[in-house]
This record gives sequence, structure tokens and C-alpha cells, in this order.
Amino acid sequence: MRDLEPLRVRLRAFAAEREWETFHSPKNLAMALAGECGELLEVFQWMTEAESRAPDPKARAAAAEELADVLLYLVRLADVLDIDLIDAAARKLDANAQKYPVDKARGHARKYTEL
Amino acid sequence: MRDLEPLRVRLRAFAAEREWETFHSPKNLAMALAGECGELLEVFQWMTEAESRAPDPKARAAAAEELADVLLYLVRLADVLDIDLIDAAARKLDANAQKYPVDKARGHARKYTEL
Amino acid sequence: MRDLEPLRVRLRAFAAEREWETFHSPKNLAMALAGECGELLEVFQWMTEAESRAPDPKARAAAAEELADVLLYLVRLADVLDIDLIDAAARKLDANAQKYPVDKARGHARKYTEL
Amino acid sequence: MRDLEPLRVRLRAFAAEREWETFHSPKNLAMALAGECGELLEVFQWMTEAESRAPDPKARAAAAEELADVLLYLVRLADVLDIDLIDAAARKLDANAQKYPVDKARGHARKYTEL
Repeated sequence: MRDLEPLRVRLRAFAAEREWETFHSPKNLAMALAGECGELLEVFQWMTEAESRAPDPKARAAAAEELADVLLYLVRLADVLDIDLIDAAARKLDANAQKYPVDKARGHARKYTEL
Repeated sequence: MRDLEPLRVRLRAFAAEREWETFHSPKNLAMALAGECGELLEVFQWMTEAESRAPDPKARAAAAEELADVLLYLVRLADVLDIDLIDAAARKLDANAQKYPVDKARGHARKYTEL
Repeated sequence: MRDLEPLRVRLRAFAAEREWETFHSPKNLAMALAGECGELLEVFQWMTEAESRAPDPKARAAAAEELADVLLYLVRLADVLDIDLIDAAARKLDANAQKYPVDKARGHARKYTEL
Repeated sequence: MRDLEPLRVRLRAFAAEREWETFHSPKNLAMALAGECGELLEVFQWMTEAESRAPDPKARAAAAEELADVLLYLVRLADVLDIDLIDAAARKLDANAQKYPVDKARGHARKYTEL
């Protein structure tokens, strides 16, 4: 996976050319992002976990499309809010490493408040 | 925004160290991703669009955390499914450019099926 | 709006006739419910709030369909979990009345933790 | 499960007393509804399907609370849009019975477009 920066630039131009900035409030983009996640859920909702690990080509392609949509709205929303996604994610991962120490979190999925 | 690759590698190690691969089926990760989008919605749900464009520092920090969570689960899910996120997004954006030609899509938010 | 009980009974029979009980785990139904909420978001995502208060007939019909889908999965999920929806909602509303006293909550949308 | 009507009336009064009508646009309520669905997903996301069918008391209580929240926002949203929820659900279920005939839909979860 390569850089998000070209994607951010392309999405900004895409919106500008179509005069869509007026629609691209963070509130609206958050809704669009969640809507795409809803479509992603629909890909997997009736599969068992095992089936979801080995989707047939059609389901896999559908998942790839929804993941792409999620990323597009995510990058656009971060751009509109002027948030550095990669930086925010790296900081969150550092925080998660603190909240979920290996020896306490190993092998179960309890929340950090219950470790 | 920089490369997603280091994030993918770090997330994979994070899950492996904690023996969380068993929980990280695509089905479960899709749920976790959608759950984070739900938290993002909660940041903006009572704001006007105008307010969402200029969130106060606390709301902005909350949004950044949720965007980070979305990215983390998105990258992890793509990794588990062996999908190249950036590639999928670039292809989707190409398709969107076809579906929404500038002259037909300018200034409104109608779906491509209604242009 | 009338009783949910006939709906619960009909949905149970609907699933039984089609041998869908195996798919109707709470986990799967929660995903399906969230997926329908995603479709509901798509109805309103590019509207202003004012527009959403006066949707055109087509959007209103689309919203009604999605609300119906949400209710169907909600009733089915509550049935599978043996939860009395109306009772749970009444108790939650009582709790909300405590958390949001009229004099402290009037005219703003701050969370109860910030009143 | 009893009537939704008292709930609708109570929710309307609840909002009026707190002068929350201004926040209760369909757009905002759809976001709040989806946010609650996100919380519901979090209850079940790391459970297996089997575990979700037999949640421990704490998880079951958490699910009941989220189902209640979903119902509250659903009823409030339908009220604001002047949609009869039960009527819409009954019509949707009739349509589903057409789309999923018993003999074609039995024992699998394929979409009606693929029967």
C-alpha cells in the first residue's frame, strides 16, 4: 500500500471540479463514511467467520469496493478537517499498546477497562 | 499523509503478539470498523453542518481519534483479506470519474443513476 | 402505531419457514440492523437538515422503507435474545429523564456527563 | 411487546420539554440511530455467533440497552417524518414474502436477486 497523499489531492480536485465542497461538510462525510461501512457489513452479515476468511471472488471483489469507498471518504473527511490520518493512527496505536499490554491482553478480547 | 505499509506491518505484529488473529476474522473486523464509524457519527450528530466545519478543539480531537480507529481497522481488514487498499481506492476513483462526469454532476448531489 | 407482538410472531414464522434460524444469530442480526441504518444514512447524507425535514415523496418513501427494515431486524433480534423491547425502551427513557433533567438540558445538546 | 404509541407520545414530550426539536431533524436522528447501532455492534463484535446466542448477563443487559436506544431513536425519527412504523414494517414484510418465496429461499441466505 502506497501513499495516501496523491489520493487526498485527487479527491480534493474531484470535489472542486464538481463544486461538491458545499456537500462535503464533516457531518455529511461522516454519514457517507458510515453508509459505506453499512454496505461492507452487508457483504459479511450472513457469512460465518470462517466463510468471511475465504470469501468467493465475487464477495471478495464486493468487499474490496466497499473498503475502497471507506478509504475515499475517510481521506476526504480527514482533509476537510485538516487532520493527518497517518499521524493520528500512529498515535492511537501507541496508546493502544499502552492500554493492551501483551501479557495482559494475550488470547482474549476483553476491553482494556477489564484487563 | 505518509505510507500505509508501516501501519499494516505494525498492526499485524500487534495482533500476533496478543494472539488476536483468532478474533480478527473479516466479519469481526467489519463490525469493529462499523462500530468506530458509529462513534464518529456521535461526534457530529447534534452539530449543524456549519458547526462540523469548525469543531472546537475537543470535538476535533475526538474526531481525529475516531478517524484513526477507522483507519486502523480498515488497514487491518484489508491486510487480512489481502486487498491492496490504495489500489482499490484508485480504481474506485477512476470508476467514479466515469459515473460522475464533471458537466453532469456539477453543483448537485444526485446519484449517478439519476444524472 | 400498533402492537409489535404480531410483527414478532410473523418474523419468527418467516424465518422458520425458510430455515433461516441458523443465520439469525444475534451477531448476524446486529450486522443486518446496522447495514439497514447505513442505507438510512444514505437517504439523508447530502441533504441539509432543513431538507431532511421536508423530504420529497421519493426520499420519504425511501426513508420509510429503511425505517421498516430497521424495525424488522430490531424486533427479530430482540426476539432471538428474548428481550422485551418496549419494556427496555421504557426503562431507558426513565433513565434518560434522570440523566437529562429539564432545567439542565433545556435548549442544548450537551451530553449528560457535561451538564 | 406492547404498543409503540405511548412511547411516541412520551418521546415527543421529552424533546419538547427540553426544547430539543431544533436538534431532532431527520438527518440528525438518523445519525443518532446509526450511532446506537454502532454501539450494538460493539457488544457482539468479538463474540462468535454461538457466543452471541448465549450472552452472559452483562452482555445481555448491554444489548438490551442498545436495542432500547435504537427503538427510541427509531420511534422518534418516524414521528418527526410522520411515518407509521408498524404499517411500513408490515408492508415491507409483505414485499419480502414475495421476494423470498419459501421454496426458493429455504436454507440459504442468498439475496432475492440471486434466487
